[in-house]
Amino acid sequence: MELLTDLNGIQTRTDQYLITKLDSLAVNDEKLLAAMRYGLLIGGKRMRPYLAHITGQSLGVSATDIDGIAAAIECIHAYSLLHDDLPAMDDDDLRRGQPTCHKAYDEATAILAGDSLQTLAFDILANHPFSPAVAEKRITLIQQLVKASGYQGMCGGQALDLAATGEQISLSQLEQLHALKTGALLEASVLMAAECAHNISTEEKQALATFAQRVGLAYQVRDDIIDITSSEEELGKPAGSDVNANKSTYPALLGLTGAQQKADDLYQQALQALASLPYNTQNLSEFATFIIERTS
Amino acid sequence: MELLTDLNGIQTRTDQYLITKLDSLAVNDEKLLAAMRYGLLIGGKRMRPYLAHITGQSLGVSATDIDGIAAAIECIHAYSLLHDDLPAMDDDDLRRGQPTCHKAYDEATAILAGDSLQTLAFDILANHPFSPAVAEKRITLIQQLVKASGYQGMCGGQALDLAATGEQISLSQLEQLHALKTGALLEASVLMAAECAHNISTEEKQALATFAQRVGLAYQVRDDIIDITSSEEELGKPAGSDVNANKSTYPALLGLTGAQQKADDLYQQALQALASLPYNTQNLSEFATFIIERTS
Repeated sequence: MELLTDLNGIQTRTDQYLITKLDSLAVNDEKLLAAMRYGLLIGGKRMRPYLAHITGQSLGVSATDIDGIAAAIECIHAYSLLHDDLPAMDDDDLRRGQPTCHKAYDEATAILAGDSLQTLAFDILANHPFSPAVAEKRITLIQQLVKASGYQGMCGGQALDLAATGEQISLSQLEQLHALKTGALLEASVLMAAECAHNISTEEKQALATFAQRVGLAYQVRDDIIDITSSEEELGKPAGSDVNANKSTYPALLGLTGAQQKADDLYQQALQALASLPYNTQNLSEFATFIIERTS
Repeated sequence: MELLTDLNGIQTRTDQYLITKLDSLAVNDEKLLAAMRYGLLIGGKRMRPYLAHITGQSLGVSATDIDGIAAAIECIHAYSLLHDDLPAMDDDDLRRGQPTCHKAYDEATAILAGDSLQTLAFDILANHPFSPAVAEKRITLIQQLVKASGYQGMCGGQALDLAATGEQISLSQLEQLHALKTGALLEASVLMAAECAHNISTEEKQALATFAQRVGLAYQVRDDIIDITSSEEELGKPAGSDVNANKSTYPALLGLTGAQQKADDLYQQALQALASLPYNTQNLSEFATFIIERTS
């Protein structure tokens, strides 16, 4: 499988930023802070920070500006996992091979840790020492994160996902669900990084948005495929959990071959969007390849 | 009991703003949007919006600037009630005489509605059409709301409250708990409004902070007293619920007379803080009187 250039470096950088941020908080309630730390630092591939950083690299944005964006997005992602795993939602006991936050702590603490991590995302965008030109765009960045994560983004997608559980939904409904639930935050990782670039045109932003949308959907299609073709050991959680949870999936709607074809089509569309850009987008195309080839 | 000047007008104004904001959201998931609406609009005294508006009036801030601050704070307050009422937290079936959100809908929807309302708060601060001078302070306002509502504010206070349930805690621990859990957002209602004022000095902001802290604590002391002296009908929820839930309260630590004395002392300190200000603070002092005299 394709290896991502400097993935480890970006993971370490993101973790270090998040640790420093958590360490800066005055300790009021040790258990809550520990649960926030657990939710943020229990592993995770840091795909969204990686996407933000390689987008920034392509567009000549400084890595220290991207640090704030990557960390804020990762806080939103982490909070959503804490809440999605709760008994009232997906009721998952394992995440990345470890007990989920409400298993390691308790439900009330997992709810509050999620709430606090959402606030921390906006804390980071409001307080990160951005360079002067990017600092002027703080409000735009916050608007982008709001749109990607709230009712009109990730939260709305999770609600659609819950509503669709056990129901037969159409391919277009499944795409809308994923575009909101996981796509919006992946797209924000690219577009918030792009927002920091000098002189980027609306058309270029649109091409990057198309790239991110196609990669985001391909990621989900692959996720559905992996869920039925991988072992629990590879996944770090029970295999076949989507099927067991009566979730609509691409393989269920299109068959396994059809779902793989769908992923391939999305991959080609993602590369096509990149081809229109006057930047070195090698890392972004390698990211798309990584998504399409990953097996766990 | 003291009646608050134009409380109804500010309630209506706040509700209208929130309804317009909710109506502006593209409908993705009707049930989630309905639960957000339920959580935001099921009544409530709108004490925080009221406090923001009367502070703004005292300092000559335009009401349309305060509208955005009041609505954002109310979204945070509403989200906290949705999550605090959950079975894993306080497990309340009634709120303001109505079924709590997870009873009217379901737990997953109440969690997501709370999450979405938190995002909506930052949405409002990032997008409200503030006047130009206040728009320049958007980031400061967001920083203030972050501090009041996240781990270092309301969420941290709720965690301390959960940790203290069934435990014997000291008076100073009880004060810290309430300063974070309810005090921080009441203080933000005053200080975010003050942030919008022209030429307000650091000393004047400090006096307003002292006022808000004392009133916030007095509010909580009164709340504890009312919980054991009022009927279910007056409260809109079961009376004695704090005692039944093994919560530490001021009457438990100080006795009923001691708690009332504590509330009176805080009231006097709040008025004293106002006395140092060169503004017409009549409505703020009436607010403090209302808090100290309220019986439900």
